[in-house]
Amino acid sequence: MTFDDEFRRQLAALIAWRRDVRRIRPDAVDPALVDGLLDLAVLAPSVGNSQPWRFVQVDDPGRRAAVIANFERCNQAALERYDAHRAQAYARLKLQGLKTAPVQLAVFCDETTEQGFGLGRQTMPESLSYSVVGAIQILWLAARAHGLGLGWVSILDPAQVAVDLDVPAAWRFIAYLCLGWPEEEHLDPELARHEWQDRTDVGRQVLHR
Amino acid sequence: MTFDDEFRRQLAALIAWRRDVRRIRPDAVDPALVDGLLDLAVLAPSVGNSQPWRFVQVDDPGRRAAVIANFERCNQAALERYDAHRAQAYARLKLQGLKTAPVQLAVFCDETTEQGFGLGRQTMPESLSYSVVGAIQILWLAARAHGLGLGWVSILDPAQVAVDLDVPAAWRFIAYLCLGWPEEEHLDPELARHEWQDRTDVGRQVLHR
Repeated sequence: MTFDDEFRRQLAALIAWRRDVRRIRPDAVDPALVDGLLDLAVLAPSVGNSQPWRFVQVDDPGRRAAVIANFERCNQAALERYDAHRAQAYARLKLQGLKTAPVQLAVFCDETTEQGFGLGRQTMPESLSYSVVGAIQILWLAARAHGLGLGWVSILDPAQVAVDLDVPAAWRFIAYLCLGWPEEEHLDPELARHEWQDRTDVGRQVLHR
Repeated sequence: MTFDDEFRRQLAALIAWRRDVRRIRPDAVDPALVDGLLDLAVLAPSVGNSQPWRFVQVDDPGRRAAVIANFERCNQAALERYDAHRAQAYARLKLQGLKTAPVQLAVFCDETTEQGFGLGRQTMPESLSYSVVGAIQILWLAARAHGLGLGWVSILDPAQVAVDLDVPAAWRFIAYLCLGWPEEEHLDPELARHEWQDRTDVGRQVLHR
């Protein structure tokens, strides 16, 4: 299998344009499209081929309201940690699309899966949840290639999410994803555009050893 | 920005063909190509735009030998956990390309970065390391689009890696990546092909809530 320069140019453009999208239109997304994205996500690498990702699609209005309430509590607590100047900036940020996103996926990691027979995760058990994060990243790029926007909400009490969504106790909450058609498009991250945190070159410098 | 069906078809093929590559030829990889891959990796999403990824390129033979010794100790300990039948299968698996991969990158997460001002990681501090995992996944796909193979080694004592590579104490070890030109190509995972763990549909079933 080979890929040409034109494909690589477009892949780079997709990676550059990906964005965490929080301004999402309520228009429906074709369920077959979501299915196709999940088909790709589960092709992600996983430690020991353990495939520990578990997806929960959240449609029930009561459960969605519980997630919003969870976010609002955590977001208020986060706001209170900042000094007045930063708090003002924080309060202005758009951090999630929970109220409008037509598709909402909570993603968990089954910490007790026997798939993979423990291979590769004795010294670094966290590699199991890292596998789930990889699947989310693939879902993200695949969604974006269709023009869909995805936003990852992490301002949540993970134990409360597990309770509110009634999932098995052994599932670790990894991410809550808002998915849908974006209201607007940008090449720069929302947090850079709204002067919270710019891109820097700190993480781009390579140490040599 | 829009992408067409042909691009999406090729992206799906890339995702399906990605593989964790452990059989890597020693031939050099153009440093400019590695640079270009890192340029893409740092476009990954990160919590609060914290960009916590830190890359260490490992070339020194003594340090590479220390990583191999680390792997061998951990791998032996892992082998001893299995019963005779599984241990035999485990011993036959090819789990890493440490001895031949021309490019070796240790990837860390700076747990003390002030970038992002803590946004999005008060309730889930692990979202910082998840951001690094996302960058690795992008690097992986981008490498594969050039025909390069990447293998993620997790059978390592993370504290020892940090010591052997002499990195700041606040850096959390996430992954050791072997990168280079593959010896062979496969559409199925190495662990499926060698009958360790097949793909299943457990993680593909979506719970509805």
